[in-house]
Amino acid sequence: MTWTLARRADRLNPSTIREILKVTERPGIISLAGGLPSADSFPVAAMAEASARVFRDCPREALQYAASEGFGPLREWVAGELGSQGLRCDASQVLITTGSQQGLDLVGKVLIDPGSGVAVETPTYLGALQAFAPYEPEFVALEGDDEGPLPDALRHARGARFVYLLPNFQNPSGRCLGNARRDVLVAAAADIGLPIVEDNPYGDLWFDAPPPAPLSARAGDGAIYLGSFSKVLAPGLRLGYVVAPHALYPKLLQAKQAADLHSPGFNQRLVHEVIKDGFLAQHVPTVRARYKAQRDAMQAALQAHMPPGCRWNAPVGGMFFWLELPATVDTTAMLPKAVEAGVAYVPGETFFAHAPRRNTLRLSFVTASPEVIQRGVAALANVLRQELNQ
Amino acid sequence: MTWTLARRADRLNPSTIREILKVTERPGIISLAGGLPSADSFPVAAMAEASARVFRDCPREALQYAASEGFGPLREWVAGELGSQGLRCDASQVLITTGSQQGLDLVGKVLIDPGSGVAVETPTYLGALQAFAPYEPEFVALEGDDEGPLPDALRHARGARFVYLLPNFQNPSGRCLGNARRDVLVAAAADIGLPIVEDNPYGDLWFDAPPPAPLSARAGDGAIYLGSFSKVLAPGLRLGYVVAPHALYPKLLQAKQAADLHSPGFNQRLVHEVIKDGFLAQHVPTVRARYKAQRDAMQAALQAHMPPGCRWNAPVGGMFFWLELPATVDTTAMLPKAVEAGVAYVPGETFFAHAPRRNTLRLSFVTASPEVIQRGVAALANVLRQELNQ
Repeated sequence: MTWTLARRADRLNPSTIREILKVTERPGIISLAGGLPSADSFPVAAMAEASARVFRDCPREALQYAASEGFGPLREWVAGELGSQGLRCDASQVLITTGSQQGLDLVGKVLIDPGSGVAVETPTYLGALQAFAPYEPEFVALEGDDEGPLPDALRHARGARFVYLLPNFQNPSGRCLGNARRDVLVAAAADIGLPIVEDNPYGDLWFDAPPPAPLSARAGDGAIYLGSFSKVLAPGLRLGYVVAPHALYPKLLQAKQAADLHSPGFNQRLVHEVIKDGFLAQHVPTVRARYKAQRDAMQAALQAHMPPGCRWNAPVGGMFFWLELPATVDTTAMLPKAVEAGVAYVPGETFFAHAPRRNTLRLSFVTASPEVIQRGVAALANVLRQELNQ
Repeated sequence: MTWTLARRADRLNPSTIREILKVTERPGIISLAGGLPSADSFPVAAMAEASARVFRDCPREALQYAASEGFGPLREWVAGELGSQGLRCDASQVLITTGSQQGLDLVGKVLIDPGSGVAVETPTYLGALQAFAPYEPEFVALEGDDEGPLPDALRHARGARFVYLLPNFQNPSGRCLGNARRDVLVAAAADIGLPIVEDNPYGDLWFDAPPPAPLSARAGDGAIYLGSFSKVLAPGLRLGYVVAPHALYPKLLQAKQAADLHSPGFNQRLVHEVIKDGFLAQHVPTVRARYKAQRDAMQAALQAHMPPGCRWNAPVGGMFFWLELPATVDTTAMLPKAVEAGVAYVPGETFFAHAPRRNTLRLSFVTASPEVIQRGVAALANVLRQELNQ
């Protein structure tokens, strides 16, 4: 039997990172490659207790089909929480999604035609490129500096359907947009009528001070905001959310119905049961403290071991360091040597919509202990030194 | 700010059924409209215990990011179960999805180009029309009889990307394809090189004898099979699965990664924990017995109350009766009168890809008790009698 594929299937490709992870999860490999939060940070006891209460108090409702919009009290919680961060919205604008990855897919489905422009940062989140790609956009890669995308670069995005931005501790670069850059970017986008899709999975993971108010708080009905419970609670529940302007909400909701009817009601009630009485205010600081210590360990190890000519900024939140190595190094070609030496990373090329910079790589500091980070970075530095000496 | 929508967004529309359900869930209305399984059938105690075991035995794994393919032991279980029903497949062909609705979305994403032919039954499952529509197919509506689609009708589907078939206790018609019709349909599809997408959410809900072996068991690599845990356990966990030919599996997997990375790992482990030791062999017969008694109650009530000129077949499984009323009746126009009289149903027109037959309607017999079914059908018959006397 011959199956004919849709043209968009050409734009679906294996996830490089998932392929790498398969190799690097072998015993004995120090993986600094994963984008996973630390399982040590999962509040297992609180979730187990909340789960028992859901099964005791409302099992029929939790296990039955439910509203596509999401569980009402959870939507209320999201609206309240975002309000406290400066993003005023109503629960009727909140759509609960099956992880924030689904939010990206729904945004693509509703907004991208074949050939539509979609502006992205340089580098940007691989999962967003994968979510948008099957809708066949033309990506516009925005040039940036250490502060984020350059407002001037937005002029290349005129006529695009939207610009996709991760303002807080971006995956992969770790950079956080300052308050002034946020204002200038939002104004530049408004000037050319360019909508913003703001993705914020990491914003709660700040180390010293919370990030500035969201872009969406400054952009009125010119922004869609995506959030997630994956990094503050646990990713295995697959719960995120989209906050959309009233005019856009119905189409996103209909796309959600078509995609999976609704996100698991049990999971939504479980998460709400865990967080409704302020649990995150105690829990998230423990995650921040853990990740900050590991960030410090990685920064110290990089300073101690990396050869000259390498460049990075210590991130002030999130999960990742982004390294630029000397221009002669190809991190994709170097990866097998690193794995042989017992350490894995993600080559940077996978995070570029166009013109990958092959001398870049991403390191996660959240799943390995400080001691293991130290050994991993030392091993990586050795491999790099050999590479440079060839 | 002006947001420009993708062209496919025109094909996204509010779910008629969900809009109806909102109206009819008012207290005092007997709703025979829903497509929900009976919450009385949910095995709450078994699930609560299994959930506690998952939190005790493997919380970190259950709450962490997981494989896009799904939880290995659950994929093995699916392959084994389908093998016992005559569909030989390997666990490597099983993709766990966020409800079988997601399976429909992934199939559409990978196989449908704008203008592609997609053949469907007359009537067919509304949710499939909604999942496929945004990919902009041209639907080909196959004529049928009480035994299912007519094999001759398939010639109109030549060149289509696939034919979508629900062989068992179809939603909405309740009909079950016999063994001979299955053979003839599969042969006719093979003759014209037409792939089959087989959707089987209801197959386990047989009342007297299991349905014949799946179409996919007869079609080799010419079929994709979709299944679900929603009707045998609970829909609120949102777990289904796709079984695909080896050649198609990678693209469906990549589409799954792009759509939501993976289905909730916690839910997958919970379901596997519940079913791994044969639980369904005790549980599903209790659901069958419950639904059969309610089917009997609705059949008796229809026979007792409906005026002449109405036509239906008592279904031998599943959840629905499908009624054809006298040709002058418009069930969409009649619905408000029925709701005023205290009973709700789903008008049939929503289940047709083309040329809706407005004198049809769907009744669910699984959520109301026999006594309530009796009252609901009597009220519906009264409304219909008034409609016919006008």
